[in-house]
Amino acid sequence: MVKVGVVGGTGYTGVELLRLLAGHPEASLQCVTSRSEKGVLVSSLYPNLRGFVDIPFTEPSIETLSQCDVVFFATPNGVAMKSVPALLAAGVKVIDLAADFRLKDEAQWQQWYGMEHACPELLKEAVYGLPEVNREAIKQARLVACPGCYPTAVQLGFLPLLQNGLIDPQRLIADVKSGVSGAGRSAAVGSLLSEASENFKAYGVSGHRHLPEIQQGLQKATASPIALTFVPHLTPMIRGIHATLYGELLSNIDKTEHELHDLFVDAYRNEPFVDVLPPNVYPETRSVKGSNTCRIAVCRPQQGRQIVVLSVIDNLCKGAAGQAVQNMNLMLGFAEDAGLDRPPLLP
Amino acid sequence: MVKVGVVGGTGYTGVELLRLLAGHPEASLQCVTSRSEKGVLVSSLYPNLRGFVDIPFTEPSIETLSQCDVVFFATPNGVAMKSVPALLAAGVKVIDLAADFRLKDEAQWQQWYGMEHACPELLKEAVYGLPEVNREAIKQARLVACPGCYPTAVQLGFLPLLQNGLIDPQRLIADVKSGVSGAGRSAAVGSLLSEASENFKAYGVSGHRHLPEIQQGLQKATASPIALTFVPHLTPMIRGIHATLYGELLSNIDKTEHELHDLFVDAYRNEPFVDVLPPNVYPETRSVKGSNTCRIAVCRPQQGRQIVVLSVIDNLCKGAAGQAVQNMNLMLGFAEDAGLDRPPLLP
Amino acid sequence: MVKVGVVGGTGYTGVELLRLLAGHPEASLQCVTSRSEKGVLVSSLYPNLRGFVDIPFTEPSIETLSQCDVVFFATPNGVAMKSVPALLAAGVKVIDLAADFRLKDEAQWQQWYGMEHACPELLKEAVYGLPEVNREAIKQARLVACPGCYPTAVQLGFLPLLQNGLIDPQRLIADVKSGVSGAGRSAAVGSLLSEASENFKAYGVSGHRHLPEIQQGLQKATASPIALTFVPHLTPMIRGIHATLYGELLSNIDKTEHELHDLFVDAYRNEPFVDVLPPNVYPETRSVKGSNTCRIAVCRPQQGRQIVVLSVIDNLCKGAAGQAVQNMNLMLGFAEDAGLDRPPLLP
Amino acid sequence: MVKVGVVGGTGYTGVELLRLLAGHPEASLQCVTSRSEKGVLVSSLYPNLRGFVDIPFTEPSIETLSQCDVVFFATPNGVAMKSVPALLAAGVKVIDLAADFRLKDEAQWQQWYGMEHACPELLKEAVYGLPEVNREAIKQARLVACPGCYPTAVQLGFLPLLQNGLIDPQRLIADVKSGVSGAGRSAAVGSLLSEASENFKAYGVSGHRHLPEIQQGLQKATASPIALTFVPHLTPMIRGIHATLYGELLSNIDKTEHELHDLFVDAYRNEPFVDVLPPNVYPETRSVKGSNTCRIAVCRPQQGRQIVVLSVIDNLCKGAAGQAVQNMNLMLGFAEDAGLDRPPLLP
Repeated sequence: MVKVGVVGGTGYTGVELLRLLAGHPEASLQCVTSRSEKGVLVSSLYPNLRGFVDIPFTEPSIETLSQCDVVFFATPNGVAMKSVPALLAAGVKVIDLAADFRLKDEAQWQQWYGMEHACPELLKEAVYGLPEVNREAIKQARLVACPGCYPTAVQLGFLPLLQNGLIDPQRLIADVKSGVSGAGRSAAVGSLLSEASENFKAYGVSGHRHLPEIQQGLQKATASPIALTFVPHLTPMIRGIHATLYGELLSNIDKTEHELHDLFVDAYRNEPFVDVLPPNVYPETRSVKGSNTCRIAVCRPQQGRQIVVLSVIDNLCKGAAGQAVQNMNLMLGFAEDAGLDRPPLLP
Repeated sequence: MVKVGVVGGTGYTGVELLRLLAGHPEASLQCVTSRSEKGVLVSSLYPNLRGFVDIPFTEPSIETLSQCDVVFFATPNGVAMKSVPALLAAGVKVIDLAADFRLKDEAQWQQWYGMEHACPELLKEAVYGLPEVNREAIKQARLVACPGCYPTAVQLGFLPLLQNGLIDPQRLIADVKSGVSGAGRSAAVGSLLSEASENFKAYGVSGHRHLPEIQQGLQKATASPIALTFVPHLTPMIRGIHATLYGELLSNIDKTEHELHDLFVDAYRNEPFVDVLPPNVYPETRSVKGSNTCRIAVCRPQQGRQIVVLSVIDNLCKGAAGQAVQNMNLMLGFAEDAGLDRPPLLP
Repeated sequence: MVKVGVVGGTGYTGVELLRLLAGHPEASLQCVTSRSEKGVLVSSLYPNLRGFVDIPFTEPSIETLSQCDVVFFATPNGVAMKSVPALLAAGVKVIDLAADFRLKDEAQWQQWYGMEHACPELLKEAVYGLPEVNREAIKQARLVACPGCYPTAVQLGFLPLLQNGLIDPQRLIADVKSGVSGAGRSAAVGSLLSEASENFKAYGVSGHRHLPEIQQGLQKATASPIALTFVPHLTPMIRGIHATLYGELLSNIDKTEHELHDLFVDAYRNEPFVDVLPPNVYPETRSVKGSNTCRIAVCRPQQGRQIVVLSVIDNLCKGAAGQAVQNMNLMLGFAEDAGLDRPPLLP
Repeated sequence: MVKVGVVGGTGYTGVELLRLLAGHPEASLQCVTSRSEKGVLVSSLYPNLRGFVDIPFTEPSIETLSQCDVVFFATPNGVAMKSVPALLAAGVKVIDLAADFRLKDEAQWQQWYGMEHACPELLKEAVYGLPEVNREAIKQARLVACPGCYPTAVQLGFLPLLQNGLIDPQRLIADVKSGVSGAGRSAAVGSLLSEASENFKAYGVSGHRHLPEIQQGLQKATASPIALTFVPHLTPMIRGIHATLYGELLSNIDKTEHELHDLFVDAYRNEPFVDVLPPNVYPETRSVKGSNTCRIAVCRPQQGRQIVVLSVIDNLCKGAAGQAVQNMNLMLGFAEDAGLDRPPLLP
């Protein structure tokens, strides 16, 4: 059993991570830290963990964390970067679920996150933890930056089209819908049931922090410069992301919907957590609830020039904690689906 | 008081219509018909109407309906067309909330609705009941075809851009999200709470009946042939439609977001039921719950070439029954907002 | 038109009150005050009010409020009592939607609300604003204390049984379920959609502030001392309260379900806002959404000794703002249903 | 690996059973039968099972089912009883998730279920599958009748009080709230999202089929005749049951809340799936979502005579499929929590 530490386990990605680790055959949870909840039983904050996680939150300390083999950061942006250098120096592998190491460009990071980076020298070393793109690098990594939830759903949907040079990189549109848990467990008026239930709205149209992350990932798939319009929306449900992606077939390309489907099947043939649906079946977010799977369909409505890709994930799982565990499995040489092998919950 | 009849008042557009008529200062409800519920008190099916609508459903008959000044059809597609000629001949004004008279092209209608049209000669006469486009014609009409819910939200959002020749008519994308009440009150597995709650999905990507209706409406706004990609989605809430519309600025056009905002304000300056929001404010569906208002914002994210229009309505109100009452008000010379003058319900 | 002021219009009872006042034929809104939102347009916080309430929040001041004929307090507990004496002295009628004047006993008030009362001398004068009990006193009142949401639903359900001496006052059980808007618009973790949706729980079992208020009201209906068990629950919806009330028939009493139904019909025959449902019909909260109506059914399951009363209201309307307007109508001699005459919203 | 068959896998208890069996270390799924869906892939109906259950629905036949070691019936009431005698004769163990074998009294069964029983001779042999009451009998059983969802939550809450002679058996009240999945996956208007969402109501007050089942179970715990008032309610969520139980302390009994808590802790000390919460903590339904756990709290509000027990389960899991797997584990000598050992999903 490897020794696992979790920093910042009070948020939704934290509790989801603890749920998955509780069912992991190779992981032994050593500590869960939280400054604000120090001394409180984890299971008193999250009663679903009663009988599974029977330790209290403890004060985070490098000394304690250094005794772990791997440490997950499920903290707000800007927290992990303060401790990561010391942990790496102590030989601990680090998986960050926040955004601290997602962007390669330091200036861009500082612009979007509004603070100076504490260890910019690690931005290059950190491996972007999207296994479908970076599996081999992840296996070798000391430091993995887990992708954001939107970026996971959008990249997995667009990449086969861009990598095969089928669509115009200047005309990418990602219309994406997220459940409210994406906003976290902080007490914000906009996330109240009485505000967010029976309601649907767009937000962050003028610019969302996941935009540069998606751009960075898509740009790596094509030599031509990309232009992406990204509109996130808030959906009245707890979990789930549905990305509806629009790409225009390049003028010299003609692929039927059937051919596009086959291309996606090929692209993800060996991926344990990407499921390309049969033709004429569209994904629904509930089909991945509580699981690490991304389900995808590709359509060409009315044989027009617009290709539509539908991509769904559970934002807390493949969009956060599940992908983090998948990354741990790769880094430590476990079966890639260890602890991630149970079906989604439906209904 | 004008005498009003409602045919088919058992569905959601029916009960919404009855709710609005109950508060209308000029309308006196004469009859509500339903074959299946004949003899049953309307208010026993819809307890919100207790004390407001105290009559039973009756068998539909031309004779009874002919004594009304105006008759609404809130029936499934293909029902109204069987009775409309007789009612018009009897001097009754008719407002159809279904699709029987929405398309001008008979062949297209038969293709999308899968049946022969019973009175194709009336397709030309019927006025498409979008007051923001056809107000004067509606005032003179004997027969008004109320627009579908998706077409209302999409057309009001796209029209100012198309009418002013700003966007490429070949690259229109409408990503639209609807509450479940849009699927009606029929007992379908897909509309069960246990299926549709905590879930988000696209449907009808390969072709939805509202597609030709939207195409017909948008085409009238521009001389160039249009191409539209329309993807409807099911959202876990009862009421509301949110259209996210994408249009690419023509290469010779440059308008700032501010200029686009002013253009929308101008376009809808005199419209009682279109509300262009202030800059940087995005609409939310709950802000129009139970009301006939369409709220709109226009954005140009990152000063790119894609214009994004956000347009919300209550699918049962401005998308159906409210617009029907607005049309009645125009046809009969009442104040356009008679019976439609109360604020939306929030939260 | 009477001049109306609203103190503390930023919460849910505030926005509901503004919605109702916007449709009131006799009320002219003079000011809406909020310290925290001073200068902000009311309609920018509550977009449903765009076009209906076009004034900003202003700083509360006795001087401004004194120019109103009637002032509503939709403030947290403990706020109104600081200003009420001055307003009454200025000849303004006051309607408090909070708890400051609901209890007659000063010591009890201080015990449950955890502060000293600022004007205990007014506790006796204040009229408890349940029109079905106190209509005549309300008509004469300068100061009305609107009942809490739970107390409204529970009292209307129990009173006919207690007043007629049918049930054991020592064995009253009120199992009551509320939508989340009852917790208000403050940013509390427990009210987040991700916490309260897809969830049901009891709270405040050991003691809830509405308990002494209900006890006080029920005690007035019977000479014998009452004992009440009150268990509130949080339900995953925005609006609505459903009270399930249990009372044991006294051993010398035998009434059939039908006789009990008739007794309730008689009790509420002349009440514009209490609707006793037909036999074998149970109320549902959605049937009163956005309206001031309380719907009630009385049952005697399996001809046993337990009487079950089902009572539903909209917690924000008959449970708060609607009842406040009903009280204003009585105090000022308007039609009792002025501004409250539109059907509930369904679905 | 034991060979497992599932009859009637198209409903919600069916899909939940398949989900749990997919993660069971000792069970090998041989067949899933459905007349209506014969030939259809199970995973095309339930996409969460893609990659986990890759067989089609097949026609039910005794021959095929006889090759299984154990057969689950997740069928409508009245189906299992037609096949059970033949399966038992073939040496197959049977677990019925429906009501066919829950009641011991044939006449009562026929009265409540409205049909003749096909094999009344088995009513006596069938073991009522509530492991907390009948564990040893279940281990020896050929035929287990899984309890209904309401009866599970109610009995686990009331039994310690009745078995210890603390409360008046003539004054039992069970006010119980269920998620909509309890109504199954059949297309009924009342279960539509647009009807059941944002709504709360009681139903079946005059008599619900779970009433005699609960009475039978509670009566076994006490020598005195019991009288139970049972009011079920429909709650706007998918999964979860919350029972609020009221029992009056017998006049010669005085127990503090603390003593009552200890008594419950003792009663369930060795139960793997009953979790008595710490004092002053109330259960919430989401804390057991997707799990086989029942969480319970016992309260004595205001030191009165009414004891309040709060008991929550997942209606599809401990209330149906999870309890069925727990029974299988007991019948076949597996670890009692095999396949049931993962934490609930929260949020």
